[in-house]
Amino acid sequence: MAQYKIPNATIKRLPLYYRYFQFLSDSHNQKVSSTELAKAVQVDSATIRRDFSYFGSLGKRGYGYEVEPMVEFFKKLLNQDKTSKVALVGVGNLGHALLNYNFSQTNNIKIVAAFDSDPAKIGTQINQITVYDIQDVAQHLHEQQIDVVILSVPVGSAQVVTDRLVQAHVKGILNFTPLRISTPENVRVHNVDLANELQTLIYFLDNYSA
Amino acid sequence: MAQYKIPNATIKRLPLYYRYFQFLSDSHNQKVSSTELAKAVQVDSATIRRDFSYFGSLGKRGYGYEVEPMVEFFKKLLNQDKTSKVALVGVGNLGHALLNYNFSQTNNIKIVAAFDSDPAKIGTQINQITVYDIQDVAQHLHEQQIDVVILSVPVGSAQVVTDRLVQAHVKGILNFTPLRISTPENVRVHNVDLANELQTLIYFLDNYSA
Repeated sequence: MAQYKIPNATIKRLPLYYRYFQFLSDSHNQKVSSTELAKAVQVDSATIRRDFSYFGSLGKRGYGYEVEPMVEFFKKLLNQDKTSKVALVGVGNLGHALLNYNFSQTNNIKIVAAFDSDPAKIGTQINQITVYDIQDVAQHLHEQQIDVVILSVPVGSAQVVTDRLVQAHVKGILNFTPLRISTPENVRVHNVDLANELQTLIYFLDNYSA
Repeated sequence: MAQYKIPNATIKRLPLYYRYFQFLSDSHNQKVSSTELAKAVQVDSATIRRDFSYFGSLGKRGYGYEVEPMVEFFKKLLNQDKTSKVALVGVGNLGHALLNYNFSQTNNIKIVAAFDSDPAKIGTQINQITVYDIQDVAQHLHEQQIDVVILSVPVGSAQVVTDRLVQAHVKGILNFTPLRISTPENVRVHNVDLANELQTLIYFLDNYSA
């Protein structure tokens, strides 16, 4: 697949578009107007047009979008014809919930291994996913060809565990800890900071609400 | 506090700055260079300078930042001198984890009430937070003066529950369901879509990694 230069904000909306076209396809719709699309995904039409423009001519002006070609397009773009395998590190409360979270409901993502340092957890299964000893993380990731990891360890061990993951040749980390972890440039980190999200929402309400 | 017109991206970084200055204060640092600050919060210096410029003259060129005044400034800005009370709706796996999540570790946010429709859960306590019947949500939110809610119900009931929350005069919803919920304009929704976050990370790795 060709490499596009696309803004981050656009990339973040791609799964949203894909999911909606998939939904339309599942409910046997053949086309959708750009107004309906904008309303459903809650992104304004101008932004959608600009997003789509990065990929050449998708849709026709005044006609809208044909569902099946769009599903196929996004499926290829997002590699949804293969399942992405990821691992989870840190089986605390949040880790436990993420192991039970149905990522495959909307995306072809599957957590296939979990890691922890607690002997009481090692060897157990949660939602059919085995919890392995964090000591053996390099070996298991290598064997199962996993290079994306969800990090949900306590903040105090976040950097130590990250260093270990980097040594194990992890390429991407979805970081749920409130710590901004340090990694080499070739390891990509996306942060999901739950307290920050809530704080930002409250800030907006305090300062901008009617 | 004066109303600033600040870009969303800047607002999302404010809690990060606050948290770092707070950390410096806790560890008895009196000043920090802009290079150190940039490294710690992983935002480049130019962006930090632009962010801070919205608030007038913070810091001195070539000198860096004095910690205590910055802590005080962000504390006021983010209303950290009062605790923000929020409620959680939907005590499934994720909701359960969020009730145990220590939001107050880094931010003055406290979940003070939870709601569910499952009779087995109603009346129980999780992390000292009582689970109430979702039928009574309007009454409890009103009594406890809560207008911000974390939504972690199953996707199938997301919109129905949202409509109920809107009727209960909720002003902000942190939406953890994969559904883009519809609300009137005066109700602000922030989406935390976990599958989307993971999908976006994988897309970057597939398309932009070395």
